[in-house]
Amino acid sequence: MIDAHGPSSLLVLGGARSGKSRYAQHRAEASGRRPVLIATAEAGDAEMAARIARHAAARDGRWSVIEEPLELAATLRREAGPARTLVVDCITLWLSNLFLRDRDPAAAAQVLVETVATLEGPVIFVSNEVGSGIVPDNALARDFRDAQGSVNQALAEACDAVVLMTAGIALPLKPGPKA
Amino acid sequence: MIDAHGPSSLLVLGGARSGKSRYAQHRAEASGRRPVLIATAEAGDAEMAARIARHAAARDGRWSVIEEPLELAATLRREAGPARTLVVDCITLWLSNLFLRDRDPAAAAQVLVETVATLEGPVIFVSNEVGSGIVPDNALARDFRDAQGSVNQALAEACDAVVLMTAGIALPLKPGPKA
Amino acid sequence: MIDAHGPSSLLVLGGARSGKSRYAQHRAEASGRRPVLIATAEAGDAEMAARIARHAAARDGRWSVIEEPLELAATLRREAGPARTLVVDCITLWLSNLFLRDRDPAAAAQVLVETVATLEGPVIFVSNEVGSGIVPDNALARDFRDAQGSVNQALAEACDAVVLMTAGIALPLKPGPKA
Repeated sequence: MIDAHGPSSLLVLGGARSGKSRYAQHRAEASGRRPVLIATAEAGDAEMAARIARHAAARDGRWSVIEEPLELAATLRREAGPARTLVVDCITLWLSNLFLRDRDPAAAAQVLVETVATLEGPVIFVSNEVGSGIVPDNALARDFRDAQGSVNQALAEACDAVVLMTAGIALPLKPGPKA
Repeated sequence: MIDAHGPSSLLVLGGARSGKSRYAQHRAEASGRRPVLIATAEAGDAEMAARIARHAAARDGRWSVIEEPLELAATLRREAGPARTLVVDCITLWLSNLFLRDRDPAAAAQVLVETVATLEGPVIFVSNEVGSGIVPDNALARDFRDAQGSVNQALAEACDAVVLMTAGIALPLKPGPKA
Repeated sequence: MIDAHGPSSLLVLGGARSGKSRYAQHRAEASGRRPVLIATAEAGDAEMAARIARHAAARDGRWSVIEEPLELAATLRREAGPARTLVVDCITLWLSNLFLRDRDPAAAAQVLVETVATLEGPVIFVSNEVGSGIVPDNALARDFRDAQGSVNQALAEACDAVVLMTAGIALPLKPGPKA
């Protein structure tokens, strides 16, 4: 359980700058366990490096940070434990790293999703919504969009809880609001 | 009514790969009526043909499939009936087909929307959210985005129920969650 | 309070053509106060001018319209009052105007957000969701997307109420639906 009586796996979805990372951080810090960030970004260009630095600065000394751009399932199996709350930030950059190396995103996603139920401690995934704009012009962007949507669906099914962030506000999708 | 006590018309909204088609399929199969797919895609290029083939493969023998890229209102009037549940997949490709042929999307949408209330059996529409990305560079994409948003609004008003799909999870919009 | 017992500040979020402006109008007209539109669009090209004209035509004589592309905080302070309901339509065009003039969007947004709590009458903000599509190719579009997301988060925190529009339907985010 992430909180005292919360889920053991949580997927935080949302668009760019919707407050996903901050929400995941707060949930991890409120869990009463040691928060561990599994950062999938690679400091490959100045823009990204600046973002990583800002993120790191926003975190206090309680956090430990592991950088892992590719081998996410193995890292989760190794790092998960009852005294820690893992935060994977984010699935979208991990997927992008797979694309850049011509790895099969569907196969990697399946291994990741199958790992979720086997972990010995709580985990929070951060992932982007990228499918609600106009259809992209180029085929690679369309492929990426499809892969992102597929992994979001599979993770949402595997996780105990899912929230959708909009302007910093978390809307519960699973379990959902009362109809 | 789509289910025993469900609505007679349902609009399934969502971004790319959000699980719209699968949700619409499941609702149709659970309706106790014969499911009929009205497919608006045209197998005009390899990518699209591959998608159609995957969709067809996902459907078992209970389904019958009608391909209709343009004359949606007439097809709905002809095919609707109390023993069948129609699934229109999807409004976005239909709108794209209208654009490609320089037909007036607003006029066609109005005819379609007026048809909904007159049908003699249940119908499920699948349509894309395309307006939540950055403003597109070119005017045609902006026009398409506006047309899609307008037809989504009109269909949402005409249908008894509306859900928004995110990562395979249906969020009820109409009737909405309890505030 | 916007309605008799409603909030005194409301943020209306949504994608393009999601019904944001119409919803904001209706809320203002139902407030029992004189509705005042603060329009941030500049009639700089034919497309935009046509939109403004359509919006103006949709409004009856009860409305007064103030055009203010840049100095939003000062305008709100000057125009707010207990007998009027201000509608700012929209934050996205205001942000775009700041970008076009190389003004600092973060600084301007902070001043705006700090102004909200000091106003002597109700205000409704309309703002776009632009972060749920694929990552834009160019750095300016990414910067704009980040700025829009940041100001949406800050306004959502400052306002008493937030709704998300989809296909003309308002989903309450703050206060949210019952979980």
